[in-house]
Amino acid sequence: MDEAPFTFDLIATQTNARAGVFHTPHGDLETPVFAPVGTQATVKAVTPAQLAETGATLVLSNTYHLYLRPGADLVAEMGGLHEFMQWPKPMLTDSGGFQVFSLSAIRKIDAEGVTFKSHIDGSMHRFTPESSIQIQEKLGADIIMAFDECSDPYDETYNRSAVDRTHAWLERCVNAKTRNDQALFGIVQGGVFPELRRESARKVAGMDLPGHAIGGLSVGESKAEMHEMIELVNEILPTGKPRYLMGVGSPEDLINGVLRGIDIFDCVLPTRLARHQSAFTHAGRINLMNAAYAHDKRPIEEGCECYTCRTFTRAYLRHLIMAKEMLAATLISIHNIQFLVTLMKQSRQAILKGQFANFASDFLAQYKTSSKKVSS
Amino acid sequence: MDEAPFTFDLIATQTNARAGVFHTPHGDLETPVFAPVGTQATVKAVTPAQLAETGATLVLSNTYHLYLRPGADLVAEMGGLHEFMQWPKPMLTDSGGFQVFSLSAIRKIDAEGVTFKSHIDGSMHRFTPESSIQIQEKLGADIIMAFDECSDPYDETYNRSAVDRTHAWLERCVNAKTRNDQALFGIVQGGVFPELRRESARKVAGMDLPGHAIGGLSVGESKAEMHEMIELVNEILPTGKPRYLMGVGSPEDLINGVLRGIDIFDCVLPTRLARHQSAFTHAGRINLMNAAYAHDKRPIEEGCECYTCRTFTRAYLRHLIMAKEMLAATLISIHNIQFLVTLMKQSRQAILKGQFANFASDFLAQYKTSSKKVSS
Repeated sequence: MDEAPFTFDLIATQTNARAGVFHTPHGDLETPVFAPVGTQATVKAVTPAQLAETGATLVLSNTYHLYLRPGADLVAEMGGLHEFMQWPKPMLTDSGGFQVFSLSAIRKIDAEGVTFKSHIDGSMHRFTPESSIQIQEKLGADIIMAFDECSDPYDETYNRSAVDRTHAWLERCVNAKTRNDQALFGIVQGGVFPELRRESARKVAGMDLPGHAIGGLSVGESKAEMHEMIELVNEILPTGKPRYLMGVGSPEDLINGVLRGIDIFDCVLPTRLARHQSAFTHAGRINLMNAAYAHDKRPIEEGCECYTCRTFTRAYLRHLIMAKEMLAATLISIHNIQFLVTLMKQSRQAILKGQFANFASDFLAQYKTSSKKVSS
Repeated sequence: MDEAPFTFDLIATQTNARAGVFHTPHGDLETPVFAPVGTQATVKAVTPAQLAETGATLVLSNTYHLYLRPGADLVAEMGGLHEFMQWPKPMLTDSGGFQVFSLSAIRKIDAEGVTFKSHIDGSMHRFTPESSIQIQEKLGADIIMAFDECSDPYDETYNRSAVDRTHAWLERCVNAKTRNDQALFGIVQGGVFPELRRESARKVAGMDLPGHAIGGLSVGESKAEMHEMIELVNEILPTGKPRYLMGVGSPEDLINGVLRGIDIFDCVLPTRLARHQSAFTHAGRINLMNAAYAHDKRPIEEGCECYTCRTFTRAYLRHLIMAKEMLAATLISIHNIQFLVTLMKQSRQAILKGQFANFASDFLAQYKTSSKKVSS
């Protein structure tokens, strides 16, 4: 299998932070990079033209959702995911593993795979490492993910068995793979347990894959635990391959991830927050439904170059929210995506100039973190 | 009061069909023209950038809705409607009259005005001809409408009194008007009664206003009745002023209106249909939720130059609909608006070339009309 297109060039480093280029069949990805999530083959409320204008380069889509609706065969018949949703740049699909464990109502896990009940119509389905790869080959993303078992981060016994199963399944994923224009990333698991994480990192790193992911974080553990796990895993993962921290997307987590050697992030956060009227600024999140913004002629953030900030006042956005106009979700999504995409571009520039330590500490000093959770 | 900017140049006519230019402070409107409706200071699900890309030039917004939320004073404080919603081209506001009669729960009509209950929070409000003009002056559209009484089209006694009241209110609107950068259009009423319509047209035409509107049609009467009323009113209205058929927007009604001398149309139909998955084609409407489109690689309509048709398949649009993604409403709205805007541009070109009779009969022969009503 020729993995030649998927080389990773490390352009510059500053302590653990890295600026690189990952070569894919749909173009070069400059890292660090944030990928907005297009769960059902669309980043919610945003057209591909609007998404491209935010500067986004990589988009993630969910295998679990697309398998259930419209089905991988239909996507393949339409020319694959890039063609179906008209995103011509790099794409990534997850394996469906995380959604099976977090979304489906009933499941049976065995050595072979997972049986689950569709959250849409209650019908029964089964994923195995082989079927996950087969589905992802039909979807046709540039980066595809190994099928893994996600466990409670604090249950050591469960993590022990989940790590073993994840490694066994990774070997089956590698064997099942047939396309040479897709990069399969293995996933490091192990909860908050240093030895399990190290063992998993060594195992995954030993598979000679084009990239590596860290899964099972940002699922309830503390920030300190998350940072420790990233650090000890990245001490083991080779520097010459991209590192993807899965499902992490708050501004402070991105900066802290880059500081610890992460190259790729994805998260629903910017678009989900937007549908809850919440917008990123460098001072922290603001909720645009707040009456304080009713007469506010400023954009969401002064100096932001997104379409929303170049065009509309906070007062107008608040009006759209109060009037229940769906344009609000579109405009705030555009801003939030561009905020994270730009944050990663600025981080890259700072690394190239050897100024990332200052950039990161300035950002973290200014950004007031929010502990508020949002539901879908 | 200087009405100089609002001159209307009649460029070409073919029988009763007219191609013209109406000069406004926010640019020249080439007629015939279709105006999409931005009820709450937004054309639902579409950004101003996307709207401009459809070729739309004139946008209507609703005085009733904006008065209730966010309030005319707030819009004025934000620089007026053009600035607030960032639509730099011509705008039109209605008087609020029609919504008071169709949306509000309780009302009391007297010689002075109308008392009504907000559909949002049940609070009581009152519109008079004077207050309607005052609100529209705060909103700041280029074309503003006289406050009129809308009645059952088949109730002759009611229409008799509604026409008299509409004329009395028109005089009060003219007297209340203070801005000289807005064109006040008078409205011809009279239901389906030829003599009332003629009397109303003579009265309104005699006011020397920059434009005239025909109200109270497409509200339940037959197409033959609607056509007859347009014809007999347009025999009386002067040819040197634009004629606006209010609230009419099906493709066949637009063509039939242009054939009878109408210059301006507005309707929620293209965007409301889009939110019900229905798209215009030259063969008639299609509902994209239909299973027949699940594997259809064609755009909504071959040859259509809208963003949606240049970019996406019917199969993808159907997937968005089935997956309940709000992007579906955006993409179908873009198509439906561009369909009607383009239909009016093509009509204008045909009139300029003296080919409109053929253009209209070809269109009407091909377009299968739909009697299906859509609710909001």
